[in-house]
Amino acid sequence: LSVDKIAQLSLLYKWLNSFPFLFLSGAGYHSESKAKEYKHVCKRACQRAVDRLKAGAFAVEAVAAALVELEDSPFTNAGMGSNLNLSGEIECDASIMDGKSLHYGAVGAISGIKNPVLVANRLLNEAQKGKLSAGRIPPCFLVGQGAHDWAVTHGIPPCPSEKMATKFSLSAYKRNKRKMELAEKMDTGHNQTKKRRQSSENENGSGCLDTVGAIVVDQEGNVAAAVSSGGLAMKHPGRVGQAAHYGCGCWAENACNMNPYSTAVSTSGCGEHLIRTMLARECSAAMQSEDAHQALLEAMQHKFISSPFLASEDRVLGGVIVLRCCRCVEAQPSQDIQGALVEFLWSHTTESMCVGYMSAQDSKAKVTGFSIGAGL
Amino acid sequence: LSVDKIAQLSLLYKWLNSFPFLFLSGAGYHSESKAKEYKHVCKRACQRAVDRLKAGAFAVEAVAAALVELEDSPFTNAGMGSNLNLSGEIECDASIMDGKSLHYGAVGAISGIKNPVLVANRLLNEAQKGKLSAGRIPPCFLVGQGAHDWAVTHGIPPCPSEKMATKFSLSAYKRNKRKMELAEKMDTGHNQTKKRRQSSENENGSGCLDTVGAIVVDQEGNVAAAVSSGGLAMKHPGRVGQAAHYGCGCWAENACNMNPYSTAVSTSGCGEHLIRTMLARECSAAMQSEDAHQALLEAMQHKFISSPFLASEDRVLGGVIVLRCCRCVEAQPSQDIQGALVEFLWSHTTESMCVGYMSAQDSKAKVTGFSIGAGL
Repeated sequence: LSVDKIAQLSLLYKWLNSFPFLFLSGAGYHSESKAKEYKHVCKRACQRAVDRLKAGAFAVEAVAAALVELEDSPFTNAGMGSNLNLSGEIECDASIMDGKSLHYGAVGAISGIKNPVLVANRLLNEAQKGKLSAGRIPPCFLVGQGAHDWAVTHGIPPCPSEKMATKFSLSAYKRNKRKMELAEKMDTGHNQTKKRRQSSENENGSGCLDTVGAIVVDQEGNVAAAVSSGGLAMKHPGRVGQAAHYGCGCWAENACNMNPYSTAVSTSGCGEHLIRTMLARECSAAMQSEDAHQALLEAMQHKFISSPFLASEDRVLGGVIVLRCCRCVEAQPSQDIQGALVEFLWSHTTESMCVGYMSAQDSKAKVTGFSIGAGL
Repeated sequence: LSVDKIAQLSLLYKWLNSFPFLFLSGAGYHSESKAKEYKHVCKRACQRAVDRLKAGAFAVEAVAAALVELEDSPFTNAGMGSNLNLSGEIECDASIMDGKSLHYGAVGAISGIKNPVLVANRLLNEAQKGKLSAGRIPPCFLVGQGAHDWAVTHGIPPCPSEKMATKFSLSAYKRNKRKMELAEKMDTGHNQTKKRRQSSENENGSGCLDTVGAIVVDQEGNVAAAVSSGGLAMKHPGRVGQAAHYGCGCWAENACNMNPYSTAVSTSGCGEHLIRTMLARECSAAMQSEDAHQALLEAMQHKFISSPFLASEDRVLGGVIVLRCCRCVEAQPSQDIQGALVEFLWSHTTESMCVGYMSAQDSKAKVTGFSIGAGL
C-alpha cells in the first residue's frame, strides 16, 4: 500500500468560552529528542499570547507575541535555529494577517533579523497608517536586503547571522551537504537527467519542515493569524516559501455581511505545495459552510491532496490549523453561549504535527503531538 | 462628484476563430508623448507571440515571447526603462503561469537581468522536471540576489543595471526625489504624522503604474498568462508587487471537470491593491459563470472597487485583461464553431489603459488606448 497522498484526518475541538487562544507548531518530521523541547516551547508560546490577551491586547498583537516565542526557540525552524540554505546562510519568511482590518504584512528571504514576524507586523502597522510622503503607497511585502534595512530603520535590531545558527542546524547542514554531493556524484556517469529526478524519492531531502504558526481570537471576537519559517533545508538563496505568500501561509478574516464566521488559518509543510494550492485561503473559505469538520476534510482532500495544481507531485506535504467562531461579540451583545462558539480543527498529511492550545480560562496550555500510524 | 472608486466598464470582444493571441499593456497614467511608442511596442509584442504560435509554440512560450518584447521597450515600466526605487536602483518583478500544467514561476526584486520574465519562465520549466538532487523540491519563487544568481547559473546573461535605466527613468527619479524632499520638508514643523498621511492625496506619487502583461490561447486551446513590472516609482528596496505574487499578477487555468472554461488573466495597477484583493485569481474564478461581461463587471465592483480588503483606501487603482474560451479543442474534436469561442474582456479603474490584441488570422495587431472621460 502506498502512503502517497493520504491525509491524517483532522480532530475537532469545540470551546464554549469567548476568548480562547489557539496555536500550532509545525508539521514535519520530529525526532524523538526534539519532541519534548517542542512541546515546551508550544506551551510557552500559548502562555505568552494568553497573557497578552488578558492584558487587553488584540488578536493580532497576541499572535505576534506567540510567534516571537516560537522564533526564539532553537528547536523550531523559524528565527533562531532556522534551516540553512545552499550557501549555509539563514533566510527567513514570515507573515501576519489581521482579520479585523484585513491588513497583511510579510517578509521573504530576510537575513540577520532574530524575529522576522516583528518586521511583518511592523509592515502591517505602518500600512494601516495610510500613505507615505508624496502620496507613495506603503509596501506590504519586502524581501532580502531591502527588508532587513527597512526593519533596522524602523527600530528592529539586527542580529548577526552566526548567532542565529545552532549546533543542530549547522550539523544538519553538513549532513545535507554530504548527502547532496553523494547524490550528485552517483548521478554522474548514469543517465544524469533521469537519475537526478528519481533520486531519493523516499527520503525527504528537505529535512525539517517545521514552519511555525499561530491563530488567535480575542475578547472582541477578532481573529488573527501568523506564520514564520526558515524554509526548506538546502533551499536556493532567495527562495521564498508559503510563509511569506499572501493567502498561502496564513489567513484571517472577521465575520462580515457575506461570511457568518470569523476564520483564521495557519499552514505548515512544503512551501511549494502550500503556495500552489493557496491552502490557507482555501481552508478559510471552506470554513463558511455549516459542518466545520466535514468542510476541512473536504478542503484537505479536494483542494490539497487531490488538487489539480499538485497532480504531478508524488506526495503532498502540509498541515493546517483552523479556527472559526461566530460573529464578533460586540455585534451581538445579547447572544447566547452558542453564539460565541469557537471551533478549532487541524489536519495534516505530514508524518507528524505538534499542536498546542490554550484559552484564557485555562491555567495552562495543552500540547499534543500527532503521528500518522505506520499502518497507513 | 468624486472620481474615487469608479471603474471604467469593460468592453467585450468575441472571436470565433480558434487560436487568437491577446495582450495588454499597462494600466496607468500615460503621457501623450509616450502613447504612440506604447502602441508600437504593443503591436510588436502581439506580432512576436503570433509568430511563435504559428510556428507551433504552446501558449506559455508565446506569452513569454510577448513579454520579452514589452520588457525590451524603454517606454514600459518593465525590464529596460523600469521605474527606479528609493535608492535609484531597478528591481523587477515578473511571473508566468501555464494553464495546462498549472505550474507557476516568479521572481521578485531582481536586479541586473534584462528580461525578468525569462527567469520566471525558466523556474516554471525547471519545476516541471521534478525534484532536484537528494529529493529537494525546486523553487517556484526566487527573490533578490539569489534570483539573479540562479538566473545566471541557468544561462540567462546578466545586464549591468546602468544599461537598464533610461533618460526618462533617470529624470523621473530626480523629479520624484525632489518632490519627496519637498513634501517631507513641508511636513516638518507641522503635525508631522498627520501631515505626512494627508499630503499629496491628489497626486499619484507612485507615478507610472504601467505594468505589462499578456494572455494567450494556443491552437490546442491551452491558456497562459504572464506579467512583468518595474514596480512603483520610489518604492522601498526589496518591495515586491503584484507582478510576483501568486494569484495577484496573473492567472491561467485550462478547462477541467470542474470548470467549463479555460481562463487567463493579467493585472496591472497599484501592486498593494492587486495583492490584497488577489484580483487575477478572483477574475479567473468569476469567469466560470455564463455571462462573461456581467461576471467581470461584478468581479471588478465587488472584489476590487468595493472590496472589504480595500475599505481604507481612498482610491483603488487597477486594470485587468481577461480571456476565456471553451474546453480544449483536443477534447472535443467534433465541436461546432461555438465550442471554440474565445472572449476577450478588460476593465480598469486607472485613468487610462492601453490594450493590444491579435489573432493568428489577423494580418496585424490592433491597439487601443482607453481613458476614463473627465466627466466621470
